[in-house]
Amino acid sequence: MRFLHTADWHIGKKLHGYDLIPEQEEAFRQIEAIAQEEHVDAIVIAGDLYDRALPSEPAVTALTQMLVTLNRQDKFPLLAISGNHDSGVRLGYGAEWFSSTDFFLRTKLADALTPVTLGDTQFFLLPYFEPIAARQFFDDDQIRTVNQAMERLVAAMQEKFAPDKHHVLIAHFFAAGSQHTDSETQVQVGGLNAVPVDLLAPFDYVALGHLHRKEALQNEPTVKYSGSPLKFSTSEAADTKGVWIVDTDTTPVTVTFKPLRPWHNLVVLEDSFEHLLDPNHIYPVTPADFIAVNLTDTTPITNVMQRLKTRFPRVIELNRVNQLDVTPDTLDVQQVQQDPVTLLQDFFAQVTQHPLSDQQLTWAKQALQRAEKEENQ
Amino acid sequence: MRFLHTADWHIGKKLHGYDLIPEQEEAFRQIEAIAQEEHVDAIVIAGDLYDRALPSEPAVTALTQMLVTLNRQDKFPLLAISGNHDSGVRLGYGAEWFSSTDFFLRTKLADALTPVTLGDTQFFLLPYFEPIAARQFFDDDQIRTVNQAMERLVAAMQEKFAPDKHHVLIAHFFAAGSQHTDSETQVQVGGLNAVPVDLLAPFDYVALGHLHRKEALQNEPTVKYSGSPLKFSTSEAADTKGVWIVDTDTTPVTVTFKPLRPWHNLVVLEDSFEHLLDPNHIYPVTPADFIAVNLTDTTPITNVMQRLKTRFPRVIELNRVNQLDVTPDTLDVQQVQQDPVTLLQDFFAQVTQHPLSDQQLTWAKQALQRAEKEENQ
Repeated sequence: MRFLHTADWHIGKKLHGYDLIPEQEEAFRQIEAIAQEEHVDAIVIAGDLYDRALPSEPAVTALTQMLVTLNRQDKFPLLAISGNHDSGVRLGYGAEWFSSTDFFLRTKLADALTPVTLGDTQFFLLPYFEPIAARQFFDDDQIRTVNQAMERLVAAMQEKFAPDKHHVLIAHFFAAGSQHTDSETQVQVGGLNAVPVDLLAPFDYVALGHLHRKEALQNEPTVKYSGSPLKFSTSEAADTKGVWIVDTDTTPVTVTFKPLRPWHNLVVLEDSFEHLLDPNHIYPVTPADFIAVNLTDTTPITNVMQRLKTRFPRVIELNRVNQLDVTPDTLDVQQVQQDPVTLLQDFFAQVTQHPLSDQQLTWAKQALQRAEKEENQ
Repeated sequence: MRFLHTADWHIGKKLHGYDLIPEQEEAFRQIEAIAQEEHVDAIVIAGDLYDRALPSEPAVTALTQMLVTLNRQDKFPLLAISGNHDSGVRLGYGAEWFSSTDFFLRTKLADALTPVTLGDTQFFLLPYFEPIAARQFFDDDQIRTVNQAMERLVAAMQEKFAPDKHHVLIAHFFAAGSQHTDSETQVQVGGLNAVPVDLLAPFDYVALGHLHRKEALQNEPTVKYSGSPLKFSTSEAADTKGVWIVDTDTTPVTVTFKPLRPWHNLVVLEDSFEHLLDPNHIYPVTPADFIAVNLTDTTPITNVMQRLKTRFPRVIELNRVNQLDVTPDTLDVQQVQQDPVTLLQDFFAQVTQHPLSDQQLTWAKQALQRAEKEENQ
């Protein structure tokens, strides 16, 4: 059995206001191509198919098309679970029909104990769950943590192990030893307690979702996060995104990484403002790339965001890596002669490290107009 | 071919704050039983499966279970379209898999020209659509109304007619001659223009959804609204709800009405306050029925809603059918000695004909507390 392991598609996610669906569709086409080239027998998607429990209609359209393409058109068996970003109920609508074409979508804890057997492998599909669900399922008030729940669940799964099959767990949680990235928020990670990797030893392979960097468990040969297909955060800028190809017919299983080429990359540029705007300084980016700028300057700069965007239209973050030196000498006299909107934009960008969004800019302009009107009355 | 025609389930709808899902599940069980007793070959659901484009999770759970029961468990072929209350995109997720077990769900205008053939009948499934969709589909700027669109669509469907088959249209729009009820709002009806019934003559039967009373087209033998399974408005209080059983092997088709028994009825009681609260006056209602009260009194009544609810817990409407006679003589001195919350509740109910909701009551209490506090300062 050879399968492709991916996760954390987060269809519908926006990056600082930029719609990522076209980027996600491009990454999807590459995943599909890898599945075809590698002649995989199945595709595993380990949760967070959507970015939100209530995805937008364009997000529903996009994901539906992807699932139809893989399963109905390309005839790949699919094994998928809901993650903490998905609504199990909404994602699971239709699951009763999906299995008729070997699309196994599991959104309830109880389903995890009914393995799906494909070829030489038993797959246990464990969707994201809260400890209370395990408490109810086992009718045991002592279960307070995901860790305790997993002890019970793994034991119950082992009872279902067919001895002549390989055993793969598909799950969506925070496994111990993993290293966080910014794109899982504190709230989400805080809601989970870590599952120690040792607990997962009975499985020949564990296909995880939740953390967005494959490096999170890089020293584990058979317990892996696939990571997200796209970079969702500057902490992932240097990463190579991709999917795992897993062959179960060796012991231990053979795991091969297949990279995805970013259509538009997420790049961190650290330099002085002067260099950044100097056409003679070449940076390895395209105008459509998402750019986080780490400014090395120590002096305030007028209209910094607006001016950076003349060269890098999709600046998504602006950070100052050095302490600002705000003394009378460094204050730009030009600056106080700017119109109020420009001053506000600049101030906002300097303080928050983000540009004003179009909506915020509209509000700011309206507020300034009102203020001006009142002044003139 | 014998099929059951229903529509306008509006799963997730609330009636003046009351959750209707349990009522809807009971009506569903009766529909299922009728389908089984009548040995129908298929079940038609002519749109508005959900009440909202973004149904709640309990609504998704309920409808999913109903569809699974009919199609996966009872093995009935299903023919369903989206209505104006549904999100075609959200409802249509999974449709590519549904057809593998003869569940034909159509949510796009273009799908209407690909009939589904079951037994001796071709079914044309036309989801709710706006004129702009027809304009784009036919690439014809002259199409401005649903009526114009239907002329083109019916002609295009006729080209697909197999001469040896019967032809049934499933659609969701406002057909001419229909009589409105309150439970379709003006906005919805306003957005549609009427399709003349004559235009639908090429079909052996037209299974319509949109209007909630089967009486809307009662003089048409083969163009029918099934109406909603539940009463959603007092204008439907006297109606008998149900489904149609349609046999296509006679010319014209044979149409039989099968009534549904309301679990908890919606009843209008018109009487004086004195009678209504008098235990010797017996009304044909149960405590769980939804009651609209038409008060015949001409004098103001203290705490009218609260007192009515002691006998009829689920009062959903209060109407005065006679002009109030508000003279100093009729004013109840007791009334002005009531506490402010009770006074407000009473006033609100008298003026709006609805009781304060729990949320409104909370707000009112908070506001009165604040006012009292300020008074005491």
